[in-house]
Amino acid sequence: MKVGYLGPNGSFTHNVAVKSFPGADRVPFGNITEVIKSYEEGLVDYAIIPVENSIEGSVHETLDYLFHQAKIEAVAEMIQPIKQQLLATSKDKKIEKIFSHPQAIAQGKKYIKAHYPNAQIEMTASTAYAARFIAENPDAPFAAIAPVAAAKEYGLEIIAKDIQEMDENYTRFWVLGRKKYAFELFKCQQKVSLALTLPDNLPGALYKALSVFAWRGINLTKIESRPLKTALGEYFFIVDIDNTNEALVSFALEELRLLGIDYKMLGNYDVYKL
Amino acid sequence: MKVGYLGPNGSFTHNVAVKSFPGADRVPFGNITEVIKSYEEGLVDYAIIPVENSIEGSVHETLDYLFHQAKIEAVAEMIQPIKQQLLATSKDKKIEKIFSHPQAIAQGKKYIKAHYPNAQIEMTASTAYAARFIAENPDAPFAAIAPVAAAKEYGLEIIAKDIQEMDENYTRFWVLGRKKYAFELFKCQQKVSLALTLPDNLPGALYKALSVFAWRGINLTKIESRPLKTALGEYFFIVDIDNTNEALVSFALEELRLLGIDYKMLGNYDVYKL
Repeated sequence: MKVGYLGPNGSFTHNVAVKSFPGADRVPFGNITEVIKSYEEGLVDYAIIPVENSIEGSVHETLDYLFHQAKIEAVAEMIQPIKQQLLATSKDKKIEKIFSHPQAIAQGKKYIKAHYPNAQIEMTASTAYAARFIAENPDAPFAAIAPVAAAKEYGLEIIAKDIQEMDENYTRFWVLGRKKYAFELFKCQQKVSLALTLPDNLPGALYKALSVFAWRGINLTKIESRPLKTALGEYFFIVDIDNTNEALVSFALEELRLLGIDYKMLGNYDVYKL
Repeated sequence: MKVGYLGPNGSFTHNVAVKSFPGADRVPFGNITEVIKSYEEGLVDYAIIPVENSIEGSVHETLDYLFHQAKIEAVAEMIQPIKQQLLATSKDKKIEKIFSHPQAIAQGKKYIKAHYPNAQIEMTASTAYAARFIAENPDAPFAAIAPVAAAKEYGLEIIAKDIQEMDENYTRFWVLGRKKYAFELFKCQQKVSLALTLPDNLPGALYKALSVFAWRGINLTKIESRPLKTALGEYFFIVDIDNTNEALVSFALEELRLLGIDYKMLGNYDVYKL
């Protein structure tokens, strides 16, 4: 079995791939669109991509592609705690330059300011790239902010542990696939994610769409608008709902259609905590 | 009168500043947070920042800062059509490298592929930076994708006009200020923008918040969730509403408070088309 994921090795998505599919043949891709395309083209059986971070919000590249271009569904969601480490090739290294992704740098700002006030900061495309880059330049006075997995992957030492400012930092990852997989992980929830397109000629359409769930007591865990890319002020809506009562949810979906509200199923999935 | 805006000169925000405040003393700042801070610290009387693009969606830096840190309000909204030009120091220049912001490059991809299939692409922090950079290197085989205003600002020639793929591309800009200003522009709408924080102990809280507007026939022009940055699945909601009937809107806001739904006023403003 082949599993595609957002690489390079040592990324958080790689960590999710290792923990979710320990025995599989795992294939890294350079960006989110390539991961999804690899799955669409049948190169892999499952694909893992980030969907939302608790601090930064939704990953638009993922949601826009799944809504506009893809005909595929999430079959599982993995929730991964995000913890950042300061890495270098050796513990007693002089550090003059620190590399990382802008979000990881923002998260580690307080620590860097307190301990390396004079270090230069360099932005990279991902935390894993930063780790790989400093591993490739072992003689330079470099450090990287990256996950534990990147330290293992590139043989780096952890200079400072868990330097992120906020402890409550999680990222949701989706596993795209044709059928559910029996993960050996802790299952904590069942959810359905929909992308709603509201008709122009239905006044209060969003309110009516939400009514369908509200009067049935179906819990919404997320609602977010994204531009339809047609005109300013035209959106589609991503709605995540609790799927504890499947019959009730299916009636709600039927009623949506009867109201003339189109939806695209983005996933019907179990949620696992890593 | 002083007006701060997101620079450098030649940016779309600069263009909005020139058109909105033709006689003012205009001051560019390097990023959105600095523009807002300059206003908070009283360095400028008005500040102009981008809020949302019809293709890319909301500008999170703006909305997150206004919600989490600022106590200021938008007093006007400017809608600016986004059109991209291919610029160079002369018309018969050989072009081997094209510089621009990732979004402008995405928008001009088709044109570039058709006319400069072998050109190297380089990402810059903004379209205006790209224009300034190629103007500073007149002997190099460089071009930039940037707005008309950047051509004027840096003395560049327009090699190809309106190369963006989608014609319907607009950006909303907010003017922050203490009081409304009598713009000599075409006014097309009146709106109120709110940031709602929903109480944990009110089931169906979002649905109830929307009811307050729905049963009064108050039109929602936008709703968007942003993470509260506390835990995964906790959001605040940005809601834009039509403010054609101010009395009705003020009753709706009063009812929100009675329901225990907190809101922060982000702006009560007129909308102008540029």
